[in-house]
Amino acid sequence: MNSTGQLVFPIVSKSIVYSEYGDPSSVLKCHSYEINEPKDNEIIIKNLACPVNPSDINQIQGVYPSKPKLTTDLGTKEPSAVCGNEAVFEIIKLGKSVSGNDFKIGDWVLPAGVNFGTWRSFAVATPSDLLKISNDKISVNQAATIAVNPSSAYQMLTFYQKLQPGDWFIQNGGNSQVGKAAIQIGKKLGLNSISIVRDRPDLDSLKDELYKLGATKVITEEENASKQFGSTIKEWLDGKSITLALNCIGGSNCTNMVRKLGKDAILLTYGGMSMKPVSIPTSLFIFKDLTAKGFWITENIKKFPGSRPETIAKVLKLMESGDIIDSEYSSITFDPLTTTDEEFLEAFKNAYANSKSGKQLIRFESEYPSV
Amino acid sequence: MNSTGQLVFPIVSKSIVYSEYGDPSSVLKCHSYEINEPKDNEIIIKNLACPVNPSDINQIQGVYPSKPKLTTDLGTKEPSAVCGNEAVFEIIKLGKSVSGNDFKIGDWVLPAGVNFGTWRSFAVATPSDLLKISNDKISVNQAATIAVNPSSAYQMLTFYQKLQPGDWFIQNGGNSQVGKAAIQIGKKLGLNSISIVRDRPDLDSLKDELYKLGATKVITEEENASKQFGSTIKEWLDGKSITLALNCIGGSNCTNMVRKLGKDAILLTYGGMSMKPVSIPTSLFIFKDLTAKGFWITENIKKFPGSRPETIAKVLKLMESGDIIDSEYSSITFDPLTTTDEEFLEAFKNAYANSKSGKQLIRFESEYPSV
Repeated sequence: MNSTGQLVFPIVSKSIVYSEYGDPSSVLKCHSYEINEPKDNEIIIKNLACPVNPSDINQIQGVYPSKPKLTTDLGTKEPSAVCGNEAVFEIIKLGKSVSGNDFKIGDWVLPAGVNFGTWRSFAVATPSDLLKISNDKISVNQAATIAVNPSSAYQMLTFYQKLQPGDWFIQNGGNSQVGKAAIQIGKKLGLNSISIVRDRPDLDSLKDELYKLGATKVITEEENASKQFGSTIKEWLDGKSITLALNCIGGSNCTNMVRKLGKDAILLTYGGMSMKPVSIPTSLFIFKDLTAKGFWITENIKKFPGSRPETIAKVLKLMESGDIIDSEYSSITFDPLTTTDEEFLEAFKNAYANSKSGKQLIRFESEYPSV
Repeated sequence: MNSTGQLVFPIVSKSIVYSEYGDPSSVLKCHSYEINEPKDNEIIIKNLACPVNPSDINQIQGVYPSKPKLTTDLGTKEPSAVCGNEAVFEIIKLGKSVSGNDFKIGDWVLPAGVNFGTWRSFAVATPSDLLKISNDKISVNQAATIAVNPSSAYQMLTFYQKLQPGDWFIQNGGNSQVGKAAIQIGKKLGLNSISIVRDRPDLDSLKDELYKLGATKVITEEENASKQFGSTIKEWLDGKSITLALNCIGGSNCTNMVRKLGKDAILLTYGGMSMKPVSIPTSLFIFKDLTAKGFWITENIKKFPGSRPETIAKVLKLMESGDIIDSEYSSITFDPLTTTDEEFLEAFKNAYANSKSGKQLIRFESEYPSV
């Protein structure tokens, strides 16, 4: 792209790569490489925005079982991988044999599979790498983060337990990205929810926020741990039982949550923020026939073929209808064509450093027209 | 029955009952009551043998969720229930309308459902209460204890995970009644097993016993806990993975066992002898897609209709073919017609007192002919 907006190849793509596992603040490098005119079956895409997710960080640390292959394909000295698993890209150039029915310039696309490597400004893809999404009614932020958190919430609420309108689920980490999505999706499905959050000075404002999203009940960890409070919950349930629990914390928080479940319930564990194991009294397993399972959306791509595009289509619809609202995030925005390698690297390192304090998004905006 | 062997009604039945929950050594009473000639649809049965199972004890203590109703049906002063859930009975008299095709005098029968109340010398039943079993090739001991332990082992090995010959399962409590049954049934199904047992002075003789039953590998809790020993197990597996674990212990024993499992495995918890919860690292749930479930054969009667007679038929066949051998037990044998109420009660209290040191069986034998 030159300064008049005309696309001139080669384009320089900046990417964040690692060649060894470790702390992101030390192992990440910026690698620039040239992208040429697309081959017949290729599509050139430009990054609009990508999040820095906890799972991306774990992948760099080497503690995430889904690992991209380290290669020298992009011209790195050492075999390396591009970080990141989630982003929304815009198509800027199509190879001759790519069908205009499926893809056209200006379309928004997501990686169709895992380990695409999304922390880069431009990329070369083939049609099977990409999933096109409508961009009429959703924000760049929503599109960039549709595939992990809200999709996880959607699958957890619909794939495992046949919940009917009026049924209840419970979750800890109620104010996490997944938790907020579960509240909103649950409301749309007609479900009642109990969301457990940590006590905090601004508890009331957090509760307000979650109630506005559609939470039925929001309780603190202390209330969750209290035997007396159990009778309050029973009153809420009014004879119903809770048959689904979503756990991203573990430890005693999770144990206390599981005690709220009725017979034949399912506990889905998708995170372990307390770093403590999932600990369940034997009697709940035997006499309540509890089923405890893990949830990993990356694995579900293989386990439930077709689930990724289906889920994204469902969640997209909920976003378009305003049933899932745009969530707050911290972002760093810059023009990838004029930034230096150092600035590019710094942006991702900053997002990593801030990643415990909320959703981190890297946004790419240039003064140049998109195409 | 008189001393010449002729059945004379009324018969006096002795039963062990409780009218309040508590320690069996204090709440159990012997209640004698008369049984008259059977009504048209009734069957009079005589107890041959009944075990004193841990779950029977928990039921008396009031900590078992499956509770028989307390009634005065048998003429007790206080509403009471007859203890016991497992026994083999012999039919001694049929009502006029009971089909001789289904039941005949001399047949061995088991309770078809739960909470029949088996700690009594004689009982009145209707056809739907009873499940007839062949008595050609099995012992009274085997018949009296077919419905809980070996049936649990059979269902755990066949209902949850589709294991093929050559596949592996792992279990703790390898020398428990269920453990020994699982070893034998597993062998017959062509499965490989790893059985975890506590270290003990006579470890070698215990190992010998389990290997003779068909155990593939027997390891100690210490070996199960050792990281180094993991590589030995990997060698045994020779590229296969373990996809089923049976847990009756909980605590660290169970956690270490779960670490041996491959992807998509199932952990079935049927007991918690350590009194510690089932504790599972979050990563095993998420990245290995572990499913942890409870197993309770009492509940499976409802959950899998028809499962009880089917399972008993399968296990019976394995007993008849010698694939499940008669197990050791401590027994008290007496003639229910000549014993006193005090002796009758004492026998059950003794079996309770000894119940931690192995399988306890009460056998009823009289000098009188059966029918």
